[in-house]
Amino acid sequence: MDLIQSVLNGEKRGIAKMITLIEKNAPEAIEALKQIYQHTGKAAIIGITGPPGSGKSSLVNQLTKKIRSEDKKVGIIAIDPTSPFTGGALLGDRIRMQELALDQGVFIRSMGSRGALGGLSRASYDAAKVLDAAGMDYVIIETVGVGQSEIDIVKLADIVALVLIPGMGDEVQAIKAGVMEIGDVFVVNKADKDGANRVVTEIEMMLDLNTEKDAARPPVIKTIATTGEGIDELNEHIKKYWHQIANSNELAKRRKERIRSELISITEDHILNQILSDKSSKIDSMVKDIYEKKIDPYSAMELLIAPEK
Amino acid sequence: MDLIQSVLNGEKRGIAKMITLIEKNAPEAIEALKQIYQHTGKAAIIGITGPPGSGKSSLVNQLTKKIRSEDKKVGIIAIDPTSPFTGGALLGDRIRMQELALDQGVFIRSMGSRGALGGLSRASYDAAKVLDAAGMDYVIIETVGVGQSEIDIVKLADIVALVLIPGMGDEVQAIKAGVMEIGDVFVVNKADKDGANRVVTEIEMMLDLNTEKDAARPPVIKTIATTGEGIDELNEHIKKYWHQIANSNELAKRRKERIRSELISITEDHILNQILSDKSSKIDSMVKDIYEKKIDPYSAMELLIAPEK
Repeated sequence: MDLIQSVLNGEKRGIAKMITLIEKNAPEAIEALKQIYQHTGKAAIIGITGPPGSGKSSLVNQLTKKIRSEDKKVGIIAIDPTSPFTGGALLGDRIRMQELALDQGVFIRSMGSRGALGGLSRASYDAAKVLDAAGMDYVIIETVGVGQSEIDIVKLADIVALVLIPGMGDEVQAIKAGVMEIGDVFVVNKADKDGANRVVTEIEMMLDLNTEKDAARPPVIKTIATTGEGIDELNEHIKKYWHQIANSNELAKRRKERIRSELISITEDHILNQILSDKSSKIDSMVKDIYEKKIDPYSAMELLIAPEK
Repeated sequence: MDLIQSVLNGEKRGIAKMITLIEKNAPEAIEALKQIYQHTGKAAIIGITGPPGSGKSSLVNQLTKKIRSEDKKVGIIAIDPTSPFTGGALLGDRIRMQELALDQGVFIRSMGSRGALGGLSRASYDAAKVLDAAGMDYVIIETVGVGQSEIDIVKLADIVALVLIPGMGDEVQAIKAGVMEIGDVFVVNKADKDGANRVVTEIEMMLDLNTEKDAARPPVIKTIATTGEGIDELNEHIKKYWHQIANSNELAKRRKERIRSELISITEDHILNQILSDKSSKIDSMVKDIYEKKIDPYSAMELLIAPEK
């Protein structure tokens, strides 16, 4: 298969085409994923997440330049909140990031957070596999870390960096709390703004509360992505963390957990698709009955899955 | 069953207890949901969503007071981003809202966005059914409308209000685009801030692009939740919209779509739970094989669902 060879050669065209197949949930995508699978597992997958406006894209931009200066290849998957109604939104930040795309050692792909049949997290994770098989040393997955599905995506990474900024309200604090336990590295971006040290202190206090994790305490790094300040330190910490987990049991443990989630998720989807195609007329009549209160949804489900007589 | 009667009588204790059972995914919850189902369908379910810091809770607070002044009962489900690591976050906004909780005609419940087995959207929708069966005239579901799962929740509502505020950046614009098509009513809160009229114009322009919807054009309402300005107008528009969809085919159509999603989702979960319990040792050994690259995830899935020989 030409496509497979093109991906394994690290050709941008092949990579782009295969990710498009994945997004469309095309049957060829699954065939291709089966074939590249044995070539995956070498890249370090880094998840970067944080609230809207925290400067994640600028940070990814800077970090990528830094990694490139060490002659490593970088694949970037940026999860965009898009809309079928407006026909998709293109972010200014992403446009700015395009300068990186001219570099042969960098591949950037935006994926919409809609329309990915079978779940956004699997589509993005499968895309990460393509970049991995294509020889990228690092695969960066960037999401807006507020919603549950977006958090699920970064959880698939080997290393998760959480980006926070000074001066956010109550609700943002709570969101921060919601993602706190998945961070391996904490980044306080826009560190030249008022309140940056307070955010650092708050994070340190939350980390103090964490008695469960037996892993090393995550570092808290101050950055100013627009000027590049703190990027060296961030890069060093990521490398250090990567070596640490790769040389212990930790990486294998994480990846096995990820494989388990993936196996369960694709099994679930497969069965669901079978039900939807095999029992669509039965579902139609049940929806009507439930609406008319002739039956409740749970009893209807029990009938739906009962073996045919 | 005492619990059922307590819920149907509209007693806060019974309502709270049943929602707790739903959150825990207790088997009794399903039994109870089956029994209350025929008593549901009367309440207007209103979804309110918007980015962090847009003042949704204050808005819900004011709107509830307004609805109460018309002697209607209100149930509120507030979806909180919580964390197993910090033990859950309680928001200042929510604490402020507690003054409403002293009113016998108001029931408020926070639900965490974690730990709801079988999906957050179903747990919150089942909670809405409890409030509906308990005689609430309105059920308000409030979420932070950024993530996909949070958007899925408000899509379950009969009426969706989107809250936006002036002065947000690129990324927030894109998020706005992502939720644009689900809004029946648009609210520009903090309307005393600079740029409020520009946000109104932007929304109107996006609505102009929408040629698909045959429903009425959604109104765009300016509010200042802290002072209550615009709340009367919001309330009137919601009532008007409710009468409009209830007296046409629209409400039935939406509810049937919702029932379909629900039926599929509970079927999916049921099957998944069966696989997890019946084939757990098989899954364990497959995870190992996938990790060691002896097999790829998709081929493993095919083996997993193949009939036993």
